[in-house]
Amino acid sequence: MIVLFTDFGVSDPYAGQVKARLAEHAPAHQVIDLLHEVPDFNPHAGSHLLAAFAHGFPPGSVFLAVVDPGVGSPRDAVVAMAGGRWFVGPDNGLLSIVAARHPDTRLWRIVWQPESLSATFHGRDLFAQIAAEIARGEFPTDKVSPTDALKVEFDAGDLARVIYIDHFGNAWTGVRGAPTNARVSAAGELFKHSESFGFVGKGEGFWFINSVGLLELAVNRGSAAATFGLKVGDPVQVQRLN
Amino acid sequence: MIVLFTDFGVSDPYAGQVKARLAEHAPAHQVIDLLHEVPDFNPHAGSHLLAAFAHGFPPGSVFLAVVDPGVGSPRDAVVAMAGGRWFVGPDNGLLSIVAARHPDTRLWRIVWQPESLSATFHGRDLFAQIAAEIARGEFPTDKVSPTDALKVEFDAGDLARVIYIDHFGNAWTGVRGAPTNARVSAAGELFKHSESFGFVGKGEGFWFINSVGLLELAVNRGSAAATFGLKVGDPVQVQRLN
Amino acid sequence: MIVLFTDFGVSDPYAGQVKARLAEHAPAHQVIDLLHEVPDFNPHAGSHLLAAFAHGFPPGSVFLAVVDPGVGSPRDAVVAMAGGRWFVGPDNGLLSIVAARHPDTRLWRIVWQPESLSATFHGRDLFAQIAAEIARGEFPTDKVSPTDALKVEFDAGDLARVIYIDHFGNAWTGVRGAPTNARVSAAGELFKHSESFGFVGKGEGFWFINSVGLLELAVNRGSAAATFGLKVGDPVQVQRLN
Repeated sequence: MIVLFTDFGVSDPYAGQVKARLAEHAPAHQVIDLLHEVPDFNPHAGSHLLAAFAHGFPPGSVFLAVVDPGVGSPRDAVVAMAGGRWFVGPDNGLLSIVAARHPDTRLWRIVWQPESLSATFHGRDLFAQIAAEIARGEFPTDKVSPTDALKVEFDAGDLARVIYIDHFGNAWTGVRGAPTNARVSAAGELFKHSESFGFVGKGEGFWFINSVGLLELAVNRGSAAATFGLKVGDPVQVQRLN
Repeated sequence: MIVLFTDFGVSDPYAGQVKARLAEHAPAHQVIDLLHEVPDFNPHAGSHLLAAFAHGFPPGSVFLAVVDPGVGSPRDAVVAMAGGRWFVGPDNGLLSIVAARHPDTRLWRIVWQPESLSATFHGRDLFAQIAAEIARGEFPTDKVSPTDALKVEFDAGDLARVIYIDHFGNAWTGVRGAPTNARVSAAGELFKHSESFGFVGKGEGFWFINSVGLLELAVNRGSAAATFGLKVGDPVQVQRLN
Repeated sequence: MIVLFTDFGVSDPYAGQVKARLAEHAPAHQVIDLLHEVPDFNPHAGSHLLAAFAHGFPPGSVFLAVVDPGVGSPRDAVVAMAGGRWFVGPDNGLLSIVAARHPDTRLWRIVWQPESLSATFHGRDLFAQIAAEIARGEFPTDKVSPTDALKVEFDAGDLARVIYIDHFGNAWTGVRGAPTNARVSAAGELFKHSESFGFVGKGEGFWFINSVGLLELAVNRGSAAATFGLKVGDPVQVQRLN
């Protein structure tokens, strides 16, 4: 299974071009569009999202992860194997959280360049081919070189900020779990805990641990982002009580 | 064929997670994203849309239908067979129109819970597996229990309201057909009938019977929603003349 | 490979219905969603986009191209073979640029109508079946008739206008390449050249030749559309210096 995790946008003709390449180079493999709306130009938020999603995918899955504002400049391209899954993308921190959180992580730098490499679309021209070869079980040893460390690494602990806002207006944070009696606040508001939407009043705000294990702020049948003015990057306070 | 009909949003990482599960549990089956923008929190509009779309899909198709604002609270989960097609989703009315409109309808309650069931994402954790088993032709008799009726049922007649607005600004209603001389009005405007867009002036409003048999309000090369201030839920008057 | 290129919108239930038909009629063939957000009602912009994308797809690819504001009125439906690839769509200019730019182009008019043809959704009812048959290698000689020319043809030279704006706010033009010392201006602004985003300052505007060979206006980590007020149709000046 090849999993696409990018900021290409769902409306734009970028994911389709990548999938056409994957269809050529790995025709027998399923391609899953996981997320094409990673916050733009934000590998930091993306790195925490990617690490949270990875668990839910089967061993051997290959993630093509592209949030790459520095494309065309001399940032490196890398392959990571972490937790039994593969990750292909730029060395700008995007893969660093998932890499740091698994003891079995192995890393390679991509040293190959295709004959035709556009300056702005390495997702299509470079990463797609590498991902396809890994998915086919033909690890491209001729195109990569083992390395000990990524050049850009983010702090692998929880990120107590909003990292994603979905179309309902739910605000995901980079905090992995919290006890139900934790004091959670953001944007000057204290949020109460609830297991799910159906247990609080309509229009009421609450926090819960979402389906990939992250602390999320929500409003039942409403938008937490609009109600509380939340946006990606906003800090969240999580106070664990004794 | 497995057909996804949800309010997960096209931009968000929900449909992709469902498709990854389907790829694991029913890898040989095509998955079609029909609609991920059913009006949020609105199983009523969704139920009329679902019933209108179902006809166009081949017998044996399995619809995974999720518009589920009550997820996590004690609403039931059900399977319906209606008109030779399968439907899996919450018992909140979403499946009730398609179920009511077919004489061959059979119903089951889902009595199984997976070991790992998130409180907020039954589409991925529960419905996807049931849908996959049905698509594979392995009806999960151990996971469901026959039932005589749904707990939540909407009126199965036409719904004379706007139930969907597309990106062109065309406003779909829940009215199944009307004679060409019917008087159709909405938002205080009387609409004339036309077979299609090309037969009225640019910027002119009209109604027509759309490609799934529903009465739709439109503006040629413009937006009916913006021109007339239409939104989901607005009433539409259809007066059949003698 | 069947490639979808339409203005159906990514949020709406149109592409899914087309894909369901393709899954019925060409189940063994990959379907790629290239673009569903061709500017609405704008086959002119679409024709230049389509011609630019076509090169990147393998020989034998079948493009189902639908930007069809005249659907239901008596515009023709056509098939083109150009550059070793197939194109199925309305005869409203959309296929005319790619057809004009290849010396091997062959054209057919679609003379067949399905038993059930909606007035507003020929993409699903007509074009999908023709595209499926071509993809299967069963050219539908009984459904088409050779023709010498399209009825609607746009100028096949460069189009010095904005033809697409992506979600980053990058503005694509219909200009195929320019020397790096060309003077490029739009919206009263002179743009400098850069190979890619990483080489200019944050918030700085520039032009580059994009990954499908078109001149594009961009802002590093910002939106060219918002910064300079660019929109589809705006003229661009490209002055080639000696």
